[in-house]
Amino acid sequence: MAEKPALQHVASLDIGGTKMAACIADASGPLLRVTQSTMKSGSPDTIAQQGIQLIDVCCQKLQIDPAQIQAVGVSSCGPFEVRDGATGIVPPNLCGGLPSGDDLPNDWTFLPLESVLRERFAEVRVANDCVAALHGERAFGTAPANSIYVTWSTGIGFGLCVDGHILNGKVGNAGHAGHMLLSDTSDALCGCGNRGDLEGMIGGRNFGKHLRRPLEEIFRDAQQGDAAAMGAVQDAARWFGRALYNLTTILDTEAIFVGGSVWRYNEALLAPLVRKEIDTRFPALTHGVSVQGATLGELVTDIGAFALVMPQAWTIRWHTQRPWEKLHTLHLTDAA
Amino acid sequence: MAEKPALQHVASLDIGGTKMAACIADASGPLLRVTQSTMKSGSPDTIAQQGIQLIDVCCQKLQIDPAQIQAVGVSSCGPFEVRDGATGIVPPNLCGGLPSGDDLPNDWTFLPLESVLRERFAEVRVANDCVAALHGERAFGTAPANSIYVTWSTGIGFGLCVDGHILNGKVGNAGHAGHMLLSDTSDALCGCGNRGDLEGMIGGRNFGKHLRRPLEEIFRDAQQGDAAAMGAVQDAARWFGRALYNLTTILDTEAIFVGGSVWRYNEALLAPLVRKEIDTRFPALTHGVSVQGATLGELVTDIGAFALVMPQAWTIRWHTQRPWEKLHTLHLTDAA
Repeated sequence: MAEKPALQHVASLDIGGTKMAACIADASGPLLRVTQSTMKSGSPDTIAQQGIQLIDVCCQKLQIDPAQIQAVGVSSCGPFEVRDGATGIVPPNLCGGLPSGDDLPNDWTFLPLESVLRERFAEVRVANDCVAALHGERAFGTAPANSIYVTWSTGIGFGLCVDGHILNGKVGNAGHAGHMLLSDTSDALCGCGNRGDLEGMIGGRNFGKHLRRPLEEIFRDAQQGDAAAMGAVQDAARWFGRALYNLTTILDTEAIFVGGSVWRYNEALLAPLVRKEIDTRFPALTHGVSVQGATLGELVTDIGAFALVMPQAWTIRWHTQRPWEKLHTLHLTDAA
Repeated sequence: MAEKPALQHVASLDIGGTKMAACIADASGPLLRVTQSTMKSGSPDTIAQQGIQLIDVCCQKLQIDPAQIQAVGVSSCGPFEVRDGATGIVPPNLCGGLPSGDDLPNDWTFLPLESVLRERFAEVRVANDCVAALHGERAFGTAPANSIYVTWSTGIGFGLCVDGHILNGKVGNAGHAGHMLLSDTSDALCGCGNRGDLEGMIGGRNFGKHLRRPLEEIFRDAQQGDAAAMGAVQDAARWFGRALYNLTTILDTEAIFVGGSVWRYNEALLAPLVRKEIDTRFPALTHGVSVQGATLGELVTDIGAFALVMPQAWTIRWHTQRPWEKLHTLHLTDAA
């Protein structure tokens, strides 16, 4: 959070593989959120231009002069790549020019973000979506100096904070721990090409795949005593717990905050299974480590993106009043 | 490194399970190093008191007034525990009161360091030995802002630097990545109780155990074409490489520096095997990551301990002149 008391409004962008969201806030909180399906054709700067357009729509609806918006915090899917000193993204689910992108209507191999946004905004800060989420949990939630945010949904992504510092890494890719290898026997294939990494084994796409039921059904059946479904849930929780144990022993973590659709299917069922994998190992490192649901809810990446650029003076008010809980979202129909 | 131009001399302590070393330095470099076997009986503050005595011996030999020594940097085996706000250690190989310590001549369960040393020195900074080593590699070597130091010897320990910040964690235990779980099938038992963690599988004690040959022999036989020995080396390098890949994807690392007795047996044989495990995965994260031998040699933890407390003004001179290369070590016979 920068110390910029002169700012009246700041913007956030949340760039995902299927959906993009723009939001404008003032000291009182976020004022309006506009979403649209992420565009997948045109020139490679389409993504950043769509973000600027969504911010402009926000301004128009709020009757704010777009020139007033000088700072934007961006939470984006990754991975990141830096070209000519500016951060862009190379996400397999958007870039048709990458080996895995055959079914996409473009030949993109790199999507510039920072360079395009800097032509319009004086201050641009880009972070991986889970890193941005942890900025949000740190600023407005209860995450302590040594904490982890993890989203367990289709993908599994992490934000990592050590000694009060949220980790970026050489080009902003710290936290890609979903691609940590855990099994030497699993042949579950991850989108990144690994076999036996965390996301490949228990990301939403592969979790309980052998049961051929929707994930929601697996969780419901497990709750109702179906042994096969319960076995799949226990297996997934065990891998997830082993990954959290690994991160705890690597980073000496104090608290872990979990969000994402898979976790939310049945946090009450998953949490004790995950805890067990941590608690039964190396007491000097795991003693007292907490595992809990993320506190900022589904807007965590939008709110986290604001935390990247908003004046520190706004933070206390947001922390106390949780103004995003009353935020209105307007969904735009897809662009032509 | 603190900005303390008034300091004339500083001390370092390197506390290991079998050996302790004390050293005194001035602006020109370390002046003398005194080592002794680590004491294993008496009261729990024996370890810290032995450290103070070794510093006093250094002073006496150098004809320096002990009262002049006001700052000490400590690199120590772990894990750490904080009691009453002060860091101590709970190492299984020194504490006879811990479950694994049956063959030790004491009932220690916690060894105070910081509290005892603070009674004698105005400034005390304690770090895990591999964390201290990375402070040394950063200050006097070539380690960049996103780098890892790893010792591969009997144990496997790490120092982790992200965004120019060397990670400590909630009580200074960041970097215990040797206890990262990697295999779901190995029954190799680690001293920490894990089965299938990195240290349990390929630490010096278990590396190639089925061959029933000394490790030095395994490396020699592998070099001479013995298939079984080569298989053991390849297997170990593969696990080591997978661990380094995991850390790279978790932390977005740029450079990895490897030291330790196992690595030094045959760096030339190990390095390409390790590299392969990194290079064949997730290019956006692993592209350009370097793996190389540590640059400070066997004194890396002593030199790293100095980096914790020495005036920054000394750093450039040490960096250029590498004064520790001419350092004299005096080994004391064991205390009664």
